[in-house]
Amino acid sequence: MLGSTHGTFTTDLRARVVACGEQPTRVAVHGVTAVEGDTDVSGRPLHASVPELDRFFRPEVVAVVGASDAEGRPNTGITRQLLDWAGRVGARVVPVHPTRTSVFGIDCVASVGELGALGVNVDLAVLLVADPLPVIEQLAEAKVRFAVAFASGFAETGEEGAAAQERLAAAVGRSGLRLLGPNTNLNAFERFREDLDGPAVALITQSGHQGRPVFTMQELGVRLSHWAPTGNEADLETADFLSYFAHRPEVGAIACYVEGLKDGRSFLLAADQAARRGVPVVAVKVGRTEAGARMAASHTGKLTGADQVVDAAMRQFGVIRVDGLDQLQDTAALLARARKPVADGVVVYSISGGTGAHFSDLATAAGLKLPTLSQARQDELHQWIPPYLSVANPVDNGGHPVGDWRGRKIIDSILADPEVGVLICPITGPFPPMSDKLAQDLVDAAEATDKLVCVVWGSPVGTEEAYRTTLLGSSRVATFRTFGNCIGAVKAYLDHHRFTAGYRSPFDEAPRTPSPSFRKAQALMRPGHRLSEHAAKQLLRAYGIRVPREQLVTSAAAAVRAAGLVGYPVVMKASGAQLAHKTELGLVKVGLTSASQIRDTYRELTDIARYEGIDLDGVLVCQMVGRGVEMVVGVTHDSLFGPTVTVGLGGVLVEVLNDAAVRVPPFGEREARDMLGELRGRALLDGVRGAPPADVDALVEVVLRVQRMALELDGDLAELDINPLMVLPRGQGAVALDALAVCR
Amino acid sequence: MLGSTHGTFTTDLRARVVACGEQPTRVAVHGVTAVEGDTDVSGRPLHASVPELDRFFRPEVVAVVGASDAEGRPNTGITRQLLDWAGRVGARVVPVHPTRTSVFGIDCVASVGELGALGVNVDLAVLLVADPLPVIEQLAEAKVRFAVAFASGFAETGEEGAAAQERLAAAVGRSGLRLLGPNTNLNAFERFREDLDGPAVALITQSGHQGRPVFTMQELGVRLSHWAPTGNEADLETADFLSYFAHRPEVGAIACYVEGLKDGRSFLLAADQAARRGVPVVAVKVGRTEAGARMAASHTGKLTGADQVVDAAMRQFGVIRVDGLDQLQDTAALLARARKPVADGVVVYSISGGTGAHFSDLATAAGLKLPTLSQARQDELHQWIPPYLSVANPVDNGGHPVGDWRGRKIIDSILADPEVGVLICPITGPFPPMSDKLAQDLVDAAEATDKLVCVVWGSPVGTEEAYRTTLLGSSRVATFRTFGNCIGAVKAYLDHHRFTAGYRSPFDEAPRTPSPSFRKAQALMRPGHRLSEHAAKQLLRAYGIRVPREQLVTSAAAAVRAAGLVGYPVVMKASGAQLAHKTELGLVKVGLTSASQIRDTYRELTDIARYEGIDLDGVLVCQMVGRGVEMVVGVTHDSLFGPTVTVGLGGVLVEVLNDAAVRVPPFGEREARDMLGELRGRALLDGVRGAPPADVDALVEVVLRVQRMALELDGDLAELDINPLMVLPRGQGAVALDALAVCR
Repeated sequence: MLGSTHGTFTTDLRARVVACGEQPTRVAVHGVTAVEGDTDVSGRPLHASVPELDRFFRPEVVAVVGASDAEGRPNTGITRQLLDWAGRVGARVVPVHPTRTSVFGIDCVASVGELGALGVNVDLAVLLVADPLPVIEQLAEAKVRFAVAFASGFAETGEEGAAAQERLAAAVGRSGLRLLGPNTNLNAFERFREDLDGPAVALITQSGHQGRPVFTMQELGVRLSHWAPTGNEADLETADFLSYFAHRPEVGAIACYVEGLKDGRSFLLAADQAARRGVPVVAVKVGRTEAGARMAASHTGKLTGADQVVDAAMRQFGVIRVDGLDQLQDTAALLARARKPVADGVVVYSISGGTGAHFSDLATAAGLKLPTLSQARQDELHQWIPPYLSVANPVDNGGHPVGDWRGRKIIDSILADPEVGVLICPITGPFPPMSDKLAQDLVDAAEATDKLVCVVWGSPVGTEEAYRTTLLGSSRVATFRTFGNCIGAVKAYLDHHRFTAGYRSPFDEAPRTPSPSFRKAQALMRPGHRLSEHAAKQLLRAYGIRVPREQLVTSAAAAVRAAGLVGYPVVMKASGAQLAHKTELGLVKVGLTSASQIRDTYRELTDIARYEGIDLDGVLVCQMVGRGVEMVVGVTHDSLFGPTVTVGLGGVLVEVLNDAAVRVPPFGEREARDMLGELRGRALLDGVRGAPPADVDALVEVVLRVQRMALELDGDLAELDINPLMVLPRGQGAVALDALAVCR
Repeated sequence: MLGSTHGTFTTDLRARVVACGEQPTRVAVHGVTAVEGDTDVSGRPLHASVPELDRFFRPEVVAVVGASDAEGRPNTGITRQLLDWAGRVGARVVPVHPTRTSVFGIDCVASVGELGALGVNVDLAVLLVADPLPVIEQLAEAKVRFAVAFASGFAETGEEGAAAQERLAAAVGRSGLRLLGPNTNLNAFERFREDLDGPAVALITQSGHQGRPVFTMQELGVRLSHWAPTGNEADLETADFLSYFAHRPEVGAIACYVEGLKDGRSFLLAADQAARRGVPVVAVKVGRTEAGARMAASHTGKLTGADQVVDAAMRQFGVIRVDGLDQLQDTAALLARARKPVADGVVVYSISGGTGAHFSDLATAAGLKLPTLSQARQDELHQWIPPYLSVANPVDNGGHPVGDWRGRKIIDSILADPEVGVLICPITGPFPPMSDKLAQDLVDAAEATDKLVCVVWGSPVGTEEAYRTTLLGSSRVATFRTFGNCIGAVKAYLDHHRFTAGYRSPFDEAPRTPSPSFRKAQALMRPGHRLSEHAAKQLLRAYGIRVPREQLVTSAAAAVRAAGLVGYPVVMKASGAQLAHKTELGLVKVGLTSASQIRDTYRELTDIARYEGIDLDGVLVCQMVGRGVEMVVGVTHDSLFGPTVTVGLGGVLVEVLNDAAVRVPPFGEREARDMLGELRGRALLDGVRGAPPADVDALVEVVLRVQRMALELDGDLAELDINPLMVLPRGQGAVALDALAVCR
């Protein structure tokens, strides 16, 4: 499971194909522990086993290698903290030290080698030594199951460190134990509050400092169950903890801080585990900018991937990406604790018309649905709220009713509405007794309902009793400090449940064996070369993608004959493997209607090519295709995720506005349709300026066929670009008018 | 200054023109107190006097009309609060009550009418009566300067209330006093902390609750100087307080919460005052969505304006628009207190590589400039920071150096760098003594530098000593709680100073008198009608905008003659006032090269028109114009701001993507150029796919001429749409190929 780089795949395709159907054995493919044979047609695993990490987090015996109680030594503080933690979780600590007989009064063993002789099974060895490498083999001999290496100086420091990390990883791979680190810390062994109940947040971070605010949420009453500080991920990686946490019953949500991923596929397989089980994953992923990606890479020595691809991949598997650590906290806390929504309508309830208007404006802009309450409901609310105040949603009570018995009635009435799944009450400042009573009513009402009750406590101070005690004291009310974070979290909550309700794992439906197209396509490949337009189109044709009728000719007379076969009017294009920017060079002529035009054009095209010094393999005589919407469909290779499929609007829209959507295979038809929905110029497909609607079904079919091609030819095809794909009016299909293909 | 609606202008244009050059007298135009004659050519004021509100905020004598000390009456609480406030600011309170002889032991007068007989000048009357209207006249007789009306039930409740508000406004207009309210509250008379110094934030809100968090910032050590709760703005409006605060020496920044504006121009004139004086204005403006706009309008009875226009208008005058109240607080506090930047480079300094990478990623994505520190600087930093840590920017110290003497050295070294204007230190959690020492070092360093030092205290708890005492105790360190708010505020800070440094008021350069084009244009207007293409083009020509050579003909023979004059090849188009979608109907034919083609085409066009039942005024025979970039330039009318000028990319880009920029006149050439920079498809103007760069200067000139037309014809022209404007290659100009004009 080690030593692989980031999705770069070089194994011969045929070997992979043969492997299908053989007896499954565990092998390392693309850095993921997979079941052999259980791979998609590109050789990437479709399933990863969930690591058994119970004894890592709850060990019975812990060896501390390099334990110390000497005054002023860094290891002394660490040893003390480990002893405290072991005491809390009921683990026995065995200090390992070459010269001391005891540390903090506990008998030492002299070396790791002696651990086996102890007669106890050591679950976890914490390595406080500068070079963990020599210890690994001894730990394996002693049958230690897990190790944590704190030492730094590995991949995060440059090439030399990366080589040392490779050696460490290789040793771990041979050993059978699982390693956390190197370059990690004590975060897994922090003090977790035991007095909080309900679903917990589990935390995975590639930086201890960056996890601190999420961990600190315990002080606000949010339960944390685990913290996995993954460090350099020589062995155990973010994905391992993700899938483990997704299977823990006490985990309500997983919060991640990710700088880079060790392997794209392993992350997606883990996210798929979470999605199947309905466990929300909220992640900060650094790398929005190239500068950020570079810094993150230099910090952990991992790849960050193209951000647009990372973003798409996360969305495909329901991972909720946020930008700030504050959003990570607020979103994870809400998603961990809130029950499944019974409706997606949101009602904003406030003691100020201004607050209601402002909050509703932002909420609507963010895509939340604020239904207008029924007249009957409004009439009921007006029993308690003065008639001149609007209670349609937002519900403005004008203030006074919250101070008496009416306050709770109003809240209960809103929550009783079948359209309402979420009640949000923004309180912009403390006005005891008004706000204290309101907070208590909200807490009480939340206890009595299955619906989500959110409060925004807008005071910047945050030491007020109503906030600290009443609101944070409730695990049923989700309390926020800003409108923005509340809206973002509620949106994520509703989106998450909508996503998981309709989730079908694309790994279950991914192609495992090559299609009949594969052999035809392989015959067209010219390793290391770019295919001519004609060859690239044959490749498309092999995968059932329509191309114009066309013939490649090398004489004017043959061109005229070809036009007769193709059918007038025709398009003529110069053809050559090295040929780009044909249109700009005047090497494309359309609408030719006679033999004489064809002869003239043949001469003109070959003259231009000669003048420009371009080698042609001939001239293409192509069928003229009717007018439609020009699209672009392509395949590129991402360093983290392998082949990706892109679809965009053609012409100026893709060139100037980069109006394109991307997906990481495998994905199904729904994702392909969703891609089109992401295009800013999507309306073009629906027909504008009197144009008929385009054949979207045919376009989706092309995207899926291109995906199939991307997977099957992954080892052979470096890049594919259909530009344009002419999508004809509905029912008439889509035709690839030009294509570029680059072989590996 | 009253009773006007929202910028709808109906006065006869010629009357306005004549008014120019007459002796200035104060008149009410568009709801703004203006100097007559000091108007732009559309009749909108170019200058508004700054209201003198000193005695409003610091009165010597305050009359409380409806004062009470009876147990359980709402006015009793208000009276008590007013007495407390008066005591603090040293004002004498005169209770006014028809039957009581004293209130809280202070002698009453029986009516407002008796105030004048008191022999003291009452500065401010606070009206706690349900109907303030009858009191206004008496107050005026008693020479009271200011009044505040708390009563609600006016424009916020619907039509009837709006009429009552109109009557109140009219009475105030006649009275000479200035009124705050109705439907306002006690916020102006709150307890302001007197122990804080340095530049203060002044607050203007259209909702008391929405201002509360900004006001509460005083508890975090941020000085607040004023709070103007403008309520329904029957008289005094947001703009009045904006320009007043912009002239107060103690005000460092103005924070606004705006739901709707009474008048667009008055707001812009006030924002202009602030921009001229370099006083930052930060605003939340509700109305991002139509739903939000509707709710805000129903809350205060004001217009919200089209959000894209509001957004542009605010940017034109440097108003910093934010979405959340938390951003309003953080941005206003920073801008009030931070000195002018000496450089725009930002350095991120952290004790964690992860935090540095994450923060830098977000900061770079937001457009902050993070310069790479010079090698010399890095070498210096590496004296104190281990060599394997990156100090290029972000500067990662790895933690340990902050605990000793090196911590301060590092900070000082970064701040000494001439490229650095801002140092930001994100601290994600408290680790005393590390974080306490770091916080203290940052506070000390900030005292010794002119540069901006920011800290993000990322702990969600916020009760820690280092945060509460050390950081919030310093007015030199700007402390935030989230990365996002820090980045947003620092961006606003650098943008604000860049904006004000280059600010030239467009009001100084706005046209005051009509151009020679005006009379020609007026002759073309047909009130209430849409102009034919030919007439619309003549209108453009009147303003010096190029149109193709063309002739309107009514026979095939005339068409052939016209083509000879215009020059072959020609375009022929059906022409008629009610004609839209010419291209879709087949009523445009291009590239006609012979007399016979012209005769055929003439017949074809008239046949189609007859078949479609379209009245034609003839057929246009037009010059063929060369290829360029198709743009759209237009004028529309905004309910709040009057005429607005739009420029967008033509064809599919404006139709499908609405890729257009808008500005509110008056604006100068720089704004016109900036409009183009806002277009997502801007690159098209620079030349793509081998196309030459377009004549941007000519395009800018058209935008400015259209602005002139919009201002001069404001009373006559409801809408103008040049579509397309063909922008030819650089040096060749721009030609309006088609235009639509609708007269009022």
